[in-house]
Formats: sequence, structure tokens, C-alpha cells
Amino acid sequence: MTSFPLPPLSAIGILGGGQLGRMLALAAGRLGFDSVVLGPEQDSPAGRVASRQIVAAFDDPLALAQLSQAVQVVTFEFENVPAATLERLSAHSVAIAPGARALAVAQDRVDEKSFLNAAGVATVAFEAVDSAQDCVLAVSRIGTPSLLKTRREGYDGKGQVWIESPADATAAFDSLGGAPCILEAAAPFLRELSVIAARGRDGEIVLYPLGENHHESGVLRRTSAPATVAPAVAAQAERIAHQVLNGLDYVGVMGIELFEMPGEVLLVNELAPRVHNSGHWTQDGCEVDQFEQHIRAIAGWPLGPTDAIRHVEMTNLLGAEADEWEKLAAEPEGRLHLYGKRGGGAGRKMGHINRVRPV
Amino acid sequence: MTSFPLPPLSAIGILGGGQLGRMLALAAGRLGFDSVVLGPEQDSPAGRVASRQIVAAFDDPLALAQLSQAVQVVTFEFENVPAATLERLSAHSVAIAPGARALAVAQDRVDEKSFLNAAGVATVAFEAVDSAQDCVLAVSRIGTPSLLKTRREGYDGKGQVWIESPADATAAFDSLGGAPCILEAAAPFLRELSVIAARGRDGEIVLYPLGENHHESGVLRRTSAPATVAPAVAAQAERIAHQVLNGLDYVGVMGIELFEMPGEVLLVNELAPRVHNSGHWTQDGCEVDQFEQHIRAIAGWPLGPTDAIRHVEMTNLLGAEADEWEKLAAEPEGRLHLYGKRGGGAGRKMGHINRVRPV
Repeated sequence: MTSFPLPPLSAIGILGGGQLGRMLALAAGRLGFDSVVLGPEQDSPAGRVASRQIVAAFDDPLALAQLSQAVQVVTFEFENVPAATLERLSAHSVAIAPGARALAVAQDRVDEKSFLNAAGVATVAFEAVDSAQDCVLAVSRIGTPSLLKTRREGYDGKGQVWIESPADATAAFDSLGGAPCILEAAAPFLRELSVIAARGRDGEIVLYPLGENHHESGVLRRTSAPATVAPAVAAQAERIAHQVLNGLDYVGVMGIELFEMPGEVLLVNELAPRVHNSGHWTQDGCEVDQFEQHIRAIAGWPLGPTDAIRHVEMTNLLGAEADEWEKLAAEPEGRLHLYGKRGGGAGRKMGHINRVRPV
Repeated sequence: MTSFPLPPLSAIGILGGGQLGRMLALAAGRLGFDSVVLGPEQDSPAGRVASRQIVAAFDDPLALAQLSQAVQVVTFEFENVPAATLERLSAHSVAIAPGARALAVAQDRVDEKSFLNAAGVATVAFEAVDSAQDCVLAVSRIGTPSLLKTRREGYDGKGQVWIESPADATAAFDSLGGAPCILEAAAPFLRELSVIAARGRDGEIVLYPLGENHHESGVLRRTSAPATVAPAVAAQAERIAHQVLNGLDYVGVMGIELFEMPGEVLLVNELAPRVHNSGHWTQDGCEVDQFEQHIRAIAGWPLGPTDAIRHVEMTNLLGAEADEWEKLAAEPEGRLHLYGKRGGGAGRKMGHINRVRPV
């Protein structure tokens, strides 16, 4: 078995070749690690800054064997890792961080909320919905408006539908293709916050200051951080992060999406068992950013400081917005991060800009 | 011919696979560029974070043809680029930055100081020395102690010898193997400073705050920045940077090593037409560090801000000092940068740590 902490020159395996994998590989490089990226895309954004790329499906047995032999620890840039992938990696005895339990919980919205509630963390009311009949019953208990989502997959607002009236329940369930679903009560939140937290192999937990998120069409548009929050809210976020990360025996960085409700109450909306878009501000706002922090955690290194040294407004550059790179690069307060993606469809995340000012 | 500014997804060619090339490649990756590293070492530190590596001698014709086809601009992590390399690259019409003139001047200590003096920039007194007889004559004019150096090559204190008495002149010349030399007057400096400056394709020049350097056995040990300097000294540094960079029609980042003499006078010791060890503090002390700045400049992008946001003491980790990575990584004020070098001989630069505090 791998012994931790991993010395420099060890290799980090990254499943997924997108921008999160790319920024993880760059952070690994800064600390003297090699990185090996596995994903189906030839010359992926992450693969082009990695020490090595393995181009294969995520559950390709031969590719996973190669990866296991080439690296000392495997991590992920996305949570929907196939169960077969985890089983094969485990069979090769390579270390995996975060672990299978965190991924399983994050992959199923009912399991996720059940875990949270069992850990003493509040969420909106919810019910599992496996049939149109379940949906009608669930709507009768939870009320309307309420939100029907597939239990698995779905992101950036996809795979979900609002139910405005009990009469719509059956049609709503059918519109999601009959997949197993979750019905969630509407959350009349004041704003959306998120906390980026990390837990080391020794159980140490650190939190970055909260970010305030603004979505458009279900996609994160801007994060403003550190967010101004009441002390009670900050304390709740800290408690939530400890409950969640300890509850999952978690290793690595996690993004926890929160709803701030009236009365200084936080509900957890969703867990992302990985570095998170709402944590990109830490690259230019903190001593050690979420990417280096994740590498430190999974390598068994001491965690780094999380204090904000600047205020940052992070804005995602979607689709053609990134074509404005020359103008953006000239902004004196803007730190530009581009992902090296070829071809930007409408809404595709091509980069982000962190606009900084003194805290 | 290449048109500038280079859009993201363009490829930057880097000659040299060491730590400077590595940090350039990481900076290029952050801005969405690809990087192609050419150097003789298989799996070099830079090659392992580059999009592609070409393993070949620096003057290998086929490799240089491949590089020219793969990239939009070629840059260097070292100044002693063979003339044959530059000629071959030029023949392939690939853009080169900084240009051949800057490299030629920096490769020959007599040419360098002659250029500086002609540009109105002060240096120590010097004379070209091509024979033992020249050396005797030069010592009689310049006096002792004085420093005899080979005109070309030599770094980190290698290829040089102090002459303490006129009687030692012949032996000193012979000890350097009869190579063409330069005799330099001793500079009774108060301290060694350096300025990292950049010039864009549009002629814009920016300077980082001065760093104060401490050498041991001819090797840079520590840089403390921003250095506390008299306004007259800062103004001189700015004038020097403008004279030098404009005089060479320079594009990119340059490190200019300075002697601060009594009476608030600066002499230029040496030019490094590349990113420079004494500029590593900018990674954690400035908005845009010297590596991103160099990539911006050679890509024809607008230059970024150079203000210090933190005070940094940069310490090189030489040889086995880098084995203390676990302890160093736990320093809350220390930002660790490791180069991914395999095998650290005594004195080999393995990494550096930037210890930060508020300005």
C-alpha cells in the first residue's frame, strides 16, 4: 500500500480531462508532483498540462490498470465516476481520494440528503419518487411549488422540473423519462452561499471564507468572496463542514452548496466531492488555493492556510465570452484563467476571471 | 509570419527543460496556451508539465524544424543558446523572443558591458583580455583586486578568478584555460539588488519593485523584496531598465543584476535575458508574476500589473535542503515551489520557498 505523505516526484492520477483536472495538474506541478490524466478526450485541457495522458473510457480495464501502476493516488474532477471504475481501481490497491463512500453519497440525491440529515445537517424536505404514483403522493405531502429531480446525473440545471400544482405531478415525472427521482420542497432562500472545505489524511479540517454565488439558467455565473455573513452563519457553515467531512471520513477538497434562509439558517443544497467552480476565487484571493489544497490533502501533506488576502469577484467566461480575452487580459484588477478548450459551444465554461480588490 | 497578440490555444516553444522552463510552461497553461519544450533531457522538469516535449540537442536541425512547425513563438530559459539554433529557427520564420541581439549581447561579457556603457548605463571599469600579456596590461590599468572572467559561459561563480596582485595576472589568465576573458574592476558595493523588468511587443515597459539578493559561494541564496531603497535608487533602476530594454528592442522579461554603490549609485553587473531566479518572489508577492508576464510579453498580450501585494523572502532550496519538504510545506507563511528534479546533487537548485508577510 501507498505510504503517506507522498514525496515530491510522486504521481497523482486524475480522472477527467476538463478544466478542474487542468487546474489540479498545474497545482500538482507547482509542488513537484507528476500528474497522469485519464479521460476519453485526446489532448484534453488537463492532458495538455499533465506529465502523461491516458486516452480511454473511464471504465476501461486496461487503462485503469495502467493508471494504477503509474501513480500513487487517484483523484477525480467529477463525482459521477462509474462504480466499475472504483471497483477496478480498488482491485489494483491504488489509493483513491476522496473515497468511494463520498462519491456514492454525492451520486444519488436521495442518499446525499439522507446522509446529511442523519449527520445532523439540515436540508429542504424531500422524498424519493420511483413512480408517477409516488410523485403524486410526495407532492401531496411536500406541497407546491416543489422541484422534481432525477436522483442521479443531471447538473447545471439539467434533469429537473418545477411542479407548480399537484395536477402536474404525473406529467412532471413522465417528463424526466421515468427515472428514479427526488422531490424537493422549494427553498425560499435569501441567497446561495458555498463553502469550500478540505480534510487531510490526519483528519484536520480547514474552511475557506464563504462565497456568495449567483446563478443564471442553472449555471454558476459569479462568486463573490469572502461573502459578508453573520457570525452565526459562519459558525453554522463550519459545523456543517465538520459534520459532512468527518461523517464521510473525507480526504480532499469538497464544495458544499448552501441556501441561506431567513433567520440566519443554512440548508445544504448539494455536495460536490471535488474542487468546485465556486472555489476558483481562492486562486487569487487566498494564500493556498483549492487546487493546491486538494493536492496537499490527497498527498497526505499538511493543509495550507485558507485566509483571504484579497476580495475576489469570480466570473465564469461562457462560450464566446472568452473571445474577449484580449480586453479581459488588459484589466488591471482581473486575473485571467483560460482552460485551453477547443471550440466553445454556447454556455460552455471556457475560463474565468478573478477580479481582485483589497479585503 | 505570426500575427500578434497570440490567441489562447496558441503554442509557446520553450528551449530548455529546467525549472525556469517548467514555471514558464505552468504560467502558459494558466492562460490557456499550449507549451512545447525542447531539450536534451528525457522527461525534464519542464517537459513533464508541457503539452509536448521534443527530446533533442538544442541545435538539432530536425528537432528545431519540428518545434518551428508546432509553435507560434519560441523563447528560452537560458541565454547561452547556440548561434546555430537561432539561425535555424530564423530560417523557419518562427517568431523568437527575446531576439537574437539580446541573446548575443548577454552571451559575451565584453559585448554586454560595451552595450551598457554605449546605452548610457554605468558598469564597473573593464577590459577585454585575450592573452596573458593583455591581462598584465589590463591589471596595470584597472588595478587590484580585480576579477577575471571568461567572456562567454560561466554562471553561479564558475569561470572566474580574483586577481589580488599584479604578479598574479598571468597565472590567473592561464587558470581559465586561455579562453577570451574580461577583467573587471572590483565593485565595493553596499549590496546587490536586481530589477525584473518586462517589455511588450508594443514597447511598453513595466518594472517590479527591486529585490535585494544574497549570494553564497557565487549562488543566489535569498532574495528579499520589495527592497527598501532610496527614491534616487529606484529612479535609476527605472532609467536603466528603459535604456537596456529599449536599446535591445527587447520583448519579454529580463533580470538585471545591480550593484548599489555608496552615494546612491547603481552599476549594472549582469543582464539575464530571461526570467530570473531573483524574480521568483513575484509568484507570491505580485498580482502577475514574472512567468506570466514573460508569456504575456512574448505573446503580444498587454503586460500585467507589477505592484507588490506582499513582502517576500525567497530562499533557494539547494540539494538536500529540498528533502525538508514536509517541514517546509507546514510553514503557514511559506509558499513552496518544487521543480520535480530527479536527484539533487549538492548545490543543485531543487526548489524555492517564498516566505510572505504583509507589505
